[in-house]
Amino acid sequence: MSEDAAYVDKGKEFKRDTNYITTRITRDGADGYPVEPGRYRLIAARACPWANRTIIVRRLLGLEDAISLGMPGPTHDQRSWTFDLDPDGKDPVLGIERLQQAYFARDPEYPRGITVPAIVDVPTGKVVTNDFAQITLDFESEWVDYHRDGAPDLYPQALREEIDAVNKRVFTEVNNGVYRAGFAGSQEAYDAAYDRLFTALDWLEERLSKQRFLVGDTITEADVRLFTTLARFDPVYHGHFKCNRQKLDEFDALWGYARDLFQTPGFGDTVDFEQIKQHYYIVHKDVNPTQIVPKGPDLANWLTPHGREALGGKPFGDGTPPGPVPQNERVTPGHGAG
Amino acid sequence: MSEDAAYVDKGKEFKRDTNYITTRITRDGADGYPVEPGRYRLIAARACPWANRTIIVRRLLGLEDAISLGMPGPTHDQRSWTFDLDPDGKDPVLGIERLQQAYFARDPEYPRGITVPAIVDVPTGKVVTNDFAQITLDFESEWVDYHRDGAPDLYPQALREEIDAVNKRVFTEVNNGVYRAGFAGSQEAYDAAYDRLFTALDWLEERLSKQRFLVGDTITEADVRLFTTLARFDPVYHGHFKCNRQKLDEFDALWGYARDLFQTPGFGDTVDFEQIKQHYYIVHKDVNPTQIVPKGPDLANWLTPHGREALGGKPFGDGTPPGPVPQNERVTPGHGAG
Repeated sequence: MSEDAAYVDKGKEFKRDTNYITTRITRDGADGYPVEPGRYRLIAARACPWANRTIIVRRLLGLEDAISLGMPGPTHDQRSWTFDLDPDGKDPVLGIERLQQAYFARDPEYPRGITVPAIVDVPTGKVVTNDFAQITLDFESEWVDYHRDGAPDLYPQALREEIDAVNKRVFTEVNNGVYRAGFAGSQEAYDAAYDRLFTALDWLEERLSKQRFLVGDTITEADVRLFTTLARFDPVYHGHFKCNRQKLDEFDALWGYARDLFQTPGFGDTVDFEQIKQHYYIVHKDVNPTQIVPKGPDLANWLTPHGREALGGKPFGDGTPPGPVPQNERVTPGHGAG
Repeated sequence: MSEDAAYVDKGKEFKRDTNYITTRITRDGADGYPVEPGRYRLIAARACPWANRTIIVRRLLGLEDAISLGMPGPTHDQRSWTFDLDPDGKDPVLGIERLQQAYFARDPEYPRGITVPAIVDVPTGKVVTNDFAQITLDFESEWVDYHRDGAPDLYPQALREEIDAVNKRVFTEVNNGVYRAGFAGSQEAYDAAYDRLFTALDWLEERLSKQRFLVGDTITEADVRLFTTLARFDPVYHGHFKCNRQKLDEFDALWGYARDLFQTPGFGDTVDFEQIKQHYYIVHKDVNPTQIVPKGPDLANWLTPHGREALGGKPFGDGTPPGPVPQNERVTPGHGAG
């Protein structure tokens, strides 16, 4: 995702713009975009928690061959995400320098933020959707014919109601809760945001002290959504967003849970801590005007034993973990944990 | 202490102005200011680590009746420290609203920063000295006739060479090292400052894993100087100054040492965490433009058992701890640990 140039609205509570392009890619092609392998390109910056979700789900489900992946760099200016990490600063498939170009191809007057994740229709170069919450659900439900053998069911029918309920609370209180604290425009708004956030984290701590995963006994969409916020907690949210009652690694169950997922193929191998830190500390000039990126924290602790197997559960249910990350999609050495 | 309105000098390393008014109050009155109980007033904001040292030493030595204490509030503007916590916003003894007035009484053209700690000559209303490093040494050496019964020797002759050597490294690398990181004007300056700081903290961790106090087997001036920085580490320096390889409470010996001192009468009972946080987060607008003060961290852990007695040593040597804090000098309830 991304936001406008000014993040902190003096005196006000942070409100996320939740208007997205809600066109869907479906089996029946109802919106004009049918599921079709090789046709679409997922644009997802590693830095962004909302985009990180889609990278994880694509990998867990083995959709790499069906949907290609373009990755903008961690920082962006007012005109938004750029392909500055690619050769010649252009996405090699779309041939564009800025993600904005794909949004303008869809709508020359596109009035809102240029956000990741976005899915682009390669033949026309137009953004199909940037509706991050729907994108992963559609990977899970609409792209089933292209899932790898052994792909987990991340959104099982029988658990959807519970997953949706958990996701709702996790979104408002945690995923978005950290931003509400960090972009608060007044002490009062911040104080209230801090209390809401830690109330929710205490709820999760309690829930996860008795079960290995958030819903059921395998990993689901709910775990993916919580994970990408937890991975950013100590490196960014604790200091930059002042979410500092304690570090994530000072929780017991939550920290064990986060490490359990991190060490599960498909999660930690998508996390680039260096890009994550650069994104927040450099882009949010009104929170961190010096744009200096902290060297800490030491992140080797993500690889320590978590002991969560004792709670039972099978991460992939009757399925299997994904294989190694394709060479061209690996996190830069030194940017991960340890 | 205090600094100019702009703390971060873009592209540059932070340099502390180390020019102070070096007039001394001595037994022989060589500088025109003889030791004389009731004549001088120590102005020391609780928020400031350099001022906090003088509050601790005054209390450890029992100089409360000999030297009175005025305490400016935690925040200040460009014209510096004010007596905004006092009735009518005036220091009840000096009758001034701003510490600046006492500096201008001494020198109407006083060109440098208005800093705490400062000692004011009450009859004339003039600042005698703001040379923070000398102030505590003089409390220890020149005011001996007014020390309480059982006062510890914080600067014993036999250990002065070692104390001075430790103090020098602690000053450049730790006391000032956190500011060098926090006010770095470039990523390079910050990175270098971070490395210097944690190199020094690792040295202290090692030293303190084998001995209870920094020099000798009792508390000395060296412990006072390190303590006031450590007390600010997790509430401020870790996040605000990006000193975030780890929190203080993630060290073993250093954290035990810090709690040992905190729980010793004369140390923790001078610490106002609320004022400390307000000072840094509100005054340094170019580091924290929103001026929002974090609610965390939870500081109850300062009161947990530290187990440092096992290393031997006697905090007060052949002396005794100071008695209870006088009623009018107590930290506001709720502003301490726990």
